Amino acid sequence: MRQGLVIVNTGNGKGKSTAAFGTLFRAWGRGMRVGVIQFIKAETGNWGEIRAARQLNIDWHAMGDGFTWESKDIDKSIEKIRRAWTFAQEQIVNGKFDLVILDEMTYAFHDGLLDVNEVVAWLKEHKPSELHIIITGRDAPPELIDYADMVTEMHEIKHPYTRGIKAQPGIEF
Amino acid sequence: MRQGLVIVNTGNGKGKSTAAFGTLFRAWGRGMRVGVIQFIKAETGNWGEIRAARQLNIDWHAMGDGFTWESKDIDKSIEKIRRAWTFAQEQIVNGKFDLVILDEMTYAFHDGLLDVNEVVAWLKEHKPSELHIIITGRDAPPELIDYADMVTEMHEIKHPYTRGIKAQPGIEF
Repeated sequence: MRQGLVIVNTGNGKGKSTAAFGTLFRAWGRGMRVGVIQFIKAETGNWGEIRAARQLNIDWHAMGDGFTWESKDIDKSIEKIRRAWTFAQEQIVNGKFDLVILDEMTYAFHDGLLDVNEVVAWLKEHKPSELHIIITGRDAPPELIDYADMVTEMHEIKHPYTRGIKAQPGIEF
Repeated sequence: MRQGLVIVNTGNGKGKSTAAFGTLFRAWGRGMRVGVIQFIKAETGNWGEIRAARQLNIDWHAMGDGFTWESKDIDKSIEKIRRAWTFAQEQIVNGKFDLVILDEMTYAFHDGLLDVNEVVAWLKEHKPSELHIIITGRDAPPELIDYADMVTEMHEIKHPYTRGIKAQPGIEF
C-alpha cells in the first residue's frame, strides 16, 4: 500500500537538491509521474538536471530568478516565489503526479515570504495521501520538520571551494 | 578547466547513494559518460535506479550479493566485493567515463575486506585527473576523507520507519 511521504532535505552541505533529483531518477525508472518546481533557480538556467529533464520530457519548472537578498528588484523576486507556491499548489492537487519536488522552497520561509504554518496547514488539508513530496533547502523551519515523515540533514565536512577549486559542470550544476 | 573531483557521501542518513544518482542524472544531462559500480547491491536487483539506467543505456553494474555480516557464504560475499574493486579499477583507467560512482564501497573497508590505504594509494597513482569519482556508504574511513575533495555527511533527523511506515517504491528503492 502506497503512502505518500513528505521528505525534507536540509542542512548546509551539498546533496539536498541532488538527492531529490536522485529520487526523481529512481521514481522515473519505476514509471512514476514526477514533477519539479524550483523556487529559486531561474527559468533561464540551463543546468545539467534541466537538460536531463528536457530530454526525458519530465515536467520541470524553474520559476525563480536566482533570488538573493541583494536582488535589485526584491518585489519582483518575492512575487516570483509566491507565484511558484501557487503553481505548486495546483500541481499538488491536480492528480498528475506521484512525486512533486519543491526545490529550494525553504528559502521562501525565511523572513516570511511564505508562512510555514499556512503552508503546512494547506498541505495537511490538500495533499493527496498517495502523493510524495520532497522539499529542499537550508534551515528548514521546525514546523516543517515536525510535519515531515523523513528529514535528512546534509552536513558539509569538506568542500573543494576551500581549496580554490571551482564548481564543476555536471557535478555541482 | 575540468578537474576531476573525488566525492564522498557518508553518514547514517538517507541520500548518500541517492545524491550520487542525482549527480549522475545531472552529468548525463550534460552528455557526460557515466558509470556505476555497486559493491553491495545484487545483480538480481530491480531497483528504480537500475530500471532508469537500463532505459537510458547507462553502464550500471550491481556486483554484490546484498552482503551482510550474516551472509551464509561469507567467502563468496568477500570474493564479490574484491571482484567489484578489480572491475572498478579497470573502469577508472579505461577512459570510457567522465564520472564513475562506487556505490556502497565504504562497507568494503570495514574489517579489512579492502585496505583503504591501498585503495587511496592506487587512486592517487591511477585516477585520470579529469575523472570524477563518487564513493558512497556509511562510516567513510578518515584516510578516504583526507584524500577526498568533497565530503558530505547525511545525518538522519527523522525517518518514517520509526512510525511503522514501510519503505516506499520509487522513493527509497
